[in-house]
Amino acid sequence: MPTQPILGILGGGQLAQMLALAAIPLGISCHIYEPDPHAPARLCAVHHCATYDDFTALQAFADAVDVITYEFENVPVACVAFLAARKPVAPGAMALRICQDRLLEKEFATQLGYATAPFIALSDALSSADAVAAVGLPAILKTRRMGYDGKGQQTIHSTAELDAARAHYIGHELILEGYVPFTYEVSIIAARDQFGTIIRYPLVQNMHRDGILRRSTAPAPCSTAALEANAHLMSSRILSAFAYVGILTIECFVIDTPHGPTLVINEFAPRVHNSGHWSIEGSSTSQFENHVRAVTGLAVREPIMRGVAVMLNLIGNEPEDSAVPAGVAIHRYHKTPRPGRKVGHLTVVAPHNSDCSVLVEACTNLPGTYV
Amino acid sequence: MPTQPILGILGGGQLAQMLALAAIPLGISCHIYEPDPHAPARLCAVHHCATYDDFTALQAFADAVDVITYEFENVPVACVAFLAARKPVAPGAMALRICQDRLLEKEFATQLGYATAPFIALSDALSSADAVAAVGLPAILKTRRMGYDGKGQQTIHSTAELDAARAHYIGHELILEGYVPFTYEVSIIAARDQFGTIIRYPLVQNMHRDGILRRSTAPAPCSTAALEANAHLMSSRILSAFAYVGILTIECFVIDTPHGPTLVINEFAPRVHNSGHWSIEGSSTSQFENHVRAVTGLAVREPIMRGVAVMLNLIGNEPEDSAVPAGVAIHRYHKTPRPGRKVGHLTVVAPHNSDCSVLVEACTNLPGTYV
Repeated sequence: MPTQPILGILGGGQLAQMLALAAIPLGISCHIYEPDPHAPARLCAVHHCATYDDFTALQAFADAVDVITYEFENVPVACVAFLAARKPVAPGAMALRICQDRLLEKEFATQLGYATAPFIALSDALSSADAVAAVGLPAILKTRRMGYDGKGQQTIHSTAELDAARAHYIGHELILEGYVPFTYEVSIIAARDQFGTIIRYPLVQNMHRDGILRRSTAPAPCSTAALEANAHLMSSRILSAFAYVGILTIECFVIDTPHGPTLVINEFAPRVHNSGHWSIEGSSTSQFENHVRAVTGLAVREPIMRGVAVMLNLIGNEPEDSAVPAGVAIHRYHKTPRPGRKVGHLTVVAPHNSDCSVLVEACTNLPGTYV
Repeated sequence: MPTQPILGILGGGQLAQMLALAAIPLGISCHIYEPDPHAPARLCAVHHCATYDDFTALQAFADAVDVITYEFENVPVACVAFLAARKPVAPGAMALRICQDRLLEKEFATQLGYATAPFIALSDALSSADAVAAVGLPAILKTRRMGYDGKGQQTIHSTAELDAARAHYIGHELILEGYVPFTYEVSIIAARDQFGTIIRYPLVQNMHRDGILRRSTAPAPCSTAALEANAHLMSSRILSAFAYVGILTIECFVIDTPHGPTLVINEFAPRVHNSGHWSIEGSSTSQFENHVRAVTGLAVREPIMRGVAVMLNLIGNEPEDSAVPAGVAIHRYHKTPRPGRKVGHLTVVAPHNSDCSVLVEACTNLPGTYV
């Protein structure tokens, strides 16, 4: 009988919940470390309910598990360092350090030769006029760390606006990014295991509103063979450069060029990602299973698509079961709805885009699915 | 926001585990009532660890949940009666009483006009010679209650052998069944919800060895349009007659007749069933999800097949992950292997029987899959 490790997960939200639901059939049980006593993942994992600076609780967590991963990249560095000294943590320290920081991730991508939005670090010595001159207008001011779902960022239309915004964000390290005239937003979801094998899901096309993901479609309708090939090479090079273990998500813009559509890197997420939720029903091996596989030392598996998949986030509200059309899977996160809060998602899988569209259309008036 | 009930499950084995894994995405959390402290379902449910005659613990369990179901039909009657007085129990008392008893279930099937093996209750007044004369030889002696996986039964070749066996089983109510010259064993898995809607999976073909299910294939290769139509009508009539809520499994023999293959009812299981495990990967809505849906008051969903599915039980042993071929899903139950103990299963789903066969063949030398 093979001995399966116990997996520790930092964070206990819906991503941790879906990781644990994927882990259990693999023979892997989970512990979560999460300060919220009502965290969704408590339903399918042992819950260590403590703050991320409680080193006694962190020690007990490290003692209870064999390997540690995380569901969010903004986990405090001191917490991860403490745990990494005790148990293996995957994805590793280098990937986490870079993906936590919008400046470092853009520098890393640039060094590998990939296009990003124009960017400049806003050091105190740099005037707003010079920063604006460097990246152009409109621009987006972002905190280097801790941003998500559109939080910690602001669109900038003038030097004066940047001056005012910098005063508002005092005490934060900031980056100014130039605007990318994109036609589509896509994500690359790929995984690398401890044997160096890399698998990748087809490009996913994403639709955001108010900075929050609303809809993901896989394979991306905007994709081409050339874009898939680019995505393949890019994810392979980046995962290898990080000696990465687990799922890495690369959010990209698609821009039109005279040579056809091209990928421009927006940001990395060193974890399972909202734009990969469709993979539970839409492929033979979900992003959650592949992440669990990679971080626990099992081989990742090439996902086989089951058709075209569309995921709709349920934000701030969720429909009654009876309102969800037949053929649409519902995932509820056991969270109390609040405006802007992701409380669940719907997934449609169908043989062709046209079949999907009919079902998606039938969902777009449901509570929570406003796109 | 819809309010989801809390589901209580009597029993905490792999069936309860897979029920809980299906319940959580529906927004339904589970409690299990199970005396074994190491029960598989404890990983994804609140565990009430007590014996089935501990009425203080049963009261606390009833208080904690909104609706109760069970993963095995041999749950003590007093326990169910106690709980049913406090919270709704599904499937209901009538179905449970009949399905617990091999005599009552055969009488029930016969009354609805369906064929069963010839059978006779072995009252003390009935001589072994008369019993044998009634059903023929060879025959199978079975306890009326508490049998599973070939336990509580014995093949009988002579009146003398029956006499000896009856002495062995003294204190048990017994039934003698005639031999059915079957060509195949199949199961009908169907569900009815509280609105009266009935859904059914395609006929499943089962292969047993030593009284334990080894392999299930869906749709059943032996099936015909006529058999599916029979199965459809049979399950609809039986579920309606029971006013059944939940998954009901009807194990049948297929016998050859001059009019073509015909179904003969072997036994009922008022619950999710080992021969339906393939439905997790093999269909859009698994037997576990449909059972949870039905018993918690949601509508059942017509399962859409994803291809041909084959399930192989892992019995007494389980393979390393690296030995499982790509394209084969593994489910481990977190149980310590013992000879004859089900510790997991494998599922293959492929577009056609021929693709399945290649993968199934590749699995048949793995530890635990001996067929």
